[in-house]
Amino acid sequence: MKKLISAPETVVADALRGLALAHPGVRVDHERRIVYRAEPKDYGTVALVSGGGSGHEPLHTGYVGFGMLDAAVAGEVFTSPTPDQIHAATIAVERGAGVLHIVKNYTGDVMNFEMAAELAQAARIDVRAVVVADDVAVADSLYTAGRRGTGTTVLLEKIVGAAAEQGHDLDTVHALAARIAASGRSMGIALSGATVPAAGSPTFELADDEIEWGVGIHGEPGRERQPLAPMPELAERLVGPLVADALPAGDAIVMLSGLGATPLIELYGMLAEVAALLEAVGVRLARVVVGETITALDMAGCLLTVLPVDAELLAYWDAPVETPAMRWGR
Amino acid sequence: MKKLISAPETVVADALRGLALAHPGVRVDHERRIVYRAEPKDYGTVALVSGGGSGHEPLHTGYVGFGMLDAAVAGEVFTSPTPDQIHAATIAVERGAGVLHIVKNYTGDVMNFEMAAELAQAARIDVRAVVVADDVAVADSLYTAGRRGTGTTVLLEKIVGAAAEQGHDLDTVHALAARIAASGRSMGIALSGATVPAAGSPTFELADDEIEWGVGIHGEPGRERQPLAPMPELAERLVGPLVADALPAGDAIVMLSGLGATPLIELYGMLAEVAALLEAVGVRLARVVVGETITALDMAGCLLTVLPVDAELLAYWDAPVETPAMRWGR
Repeated sequence: MKKLISAPETVVADALRGLALAHPGVRVDHERRIVYRAEPKDYGTVALVSGGGSGHEPLHTGYVGFGMLDAAVAGEVFTSPTPDQIHAATIAVERGAGVLHIVKNYTGDVMNFEMAAELAQAARIDVRAVVVADDVAVADSLYTAGRRGTGTTVLLEKIVGAAAEQGHDLDTVHALAARIAASGRSMGIALSGATVPAAGSPTFELADDEIEWGVGIHGEPGRERQPLAPMPELAERLVGPLVADALPAGDAIVMLSGLGATPLIELYGMLAEVAALLEAVGVRLARVVVGETITALDMAGCLLTVLPVDAELLAYWDAPVETPAMRWGR
Repeated sequence: MKKLISAPETVVADALRGLALAHPGVRVDHERRIVYRAEPKDYGTVALVSGGGSGHEPLHTGYVGFGMLDAAVAGEVFTSPTPDQIHAATIAVERGAGVLHIVKNYTGDVMNFEMAAELAQAARIDVRAVVVADDVAVADSLYTAGRRGTGTTVLLEKIVGAAAEQGHDLDTVHALAARIAASGRSMGIALSGATVPAAGSPTFELADDEIEWGVGIHGEPGRERQPLAPMPELAERLVGPLVADALPAGDAIVMLSGLGATPLIELYGMLAEVAALLEAVGVRLARVVVGETITALDMAGCLLTVLPVDAELLAYWDAPVETPAMRWGR
């Protein structure tokens, strides 16, 4: 294992120290591993809490701030945060108008967020949850009943964050989140496995001419191993399953995230191929995000997410945001 | 070679197509491989042109836009752009107040920017150049007489871009650029080589327990091969040479860039170690940038850049910017 780390057991704590140093706009509870906004929201607004296993940075800690999350809870690498952590974050950010939990569909995450919600509800805090299950690759997976939750989470946190910031109530914010969770779709491919520091070896090994088609963001198996191919064919393998999943024509936000070890020059090239295929089926790229927005440690590969949008969603998308990983506008 | 590409010879053109699709704020001349702002500057303001070999994305194409560059010229991977390309960009962005060329110190880049400047001067355009030679690793290198130009280039493009935007004349903008070029320092380490698509194999091979200390952003050799070590020791190997190069105490902008294949979770951890060492010698982290800002294709490793700053430079740093790779403020 060849990594910039001090020791496998300190990777998450070390990264949170660096995050706190780099971004004065967030405040880190190092003991509980929770990242908060430095300036809390006004009383009477809905608060958003997300979190999950570490190793997907900038998700979720990099999305805490004005216009997105109020708190992000960091688990160990590829491991769900505990109900106690999530509960502490929920209580801390609650401002009298309820809290929305944004959860990626992994069995551990769903269970622990549910337990935290029950604890908070016992304390008379109104908590709702949205579970993102957008990965069209497989029906069930290694750590998941139902589809896995991946890239749509990023887009949801941005859009719903804007709605919460503008003062909409919990019913409205929750309904918006549910609508996005129901309409975003993702598909990924890996050119290499990811190495969890505590394990010391890759989650899987691929031959020099092999890809994992439909890979999960923890290295879960996809649909099948396939031969590596030139980019137009790989783009077809990303776009095809989304279209086959009844992707509607019309405006969409398209996100192409590197999974941790794929350089930007490759991502931009892949975007051009993906865009042509999407446009051919009537999907218009209303907004585009390219870069590392949701990752899987040092995995090479990419994840394509397409979210159909209307004018309302685009207005939220374009609203101001100020987080470690995303800043918008002037 | 395992990459998301169509063919080695189309990598740069493909990436520029994706860049144009993703970012409506820039306009791409695909024939000449020049990226321009979609909305040109006002007449009477100094224009900034940079460029170099591709494979360092987001440098330079991702830094075109309001508050940074007016144009970036893209060479082939790790290959200087031609004088004709640079000249075309220079003529196109000139607004009656002169043009500053921002050049990284590589022999080919310096020569081709000089030839382009001569062509422009023959057309009575006032062109000055600043050459960044900030890499303290080695005195001369594979493609360079003198120190190589690396991370300070990013900080210079931001700060000088703000000064040009605010209407300062060419003398002032050039003097500011020269001051930054003279005071920024960088040092990098690699955990792997980079694979140039046309070559098909890595620029160098490292054993599983080896790093290249003082590596260049094209995989040029550094000071020596050393054993991999826990992060605190690696941080010492990055900070030590900067301090030994007479790094002054006081405020600084600190940038830690991944070289293409190092995930954010590792970079944040490294930042925490680097920050402690810098603070121990009296360097205060006035601003911090962590992420992939200057890369070397798919190289694993990182590059540390420290730029001493005063209130004037910080004000330019904090000024609004709107480019594909950097956005500031609300």
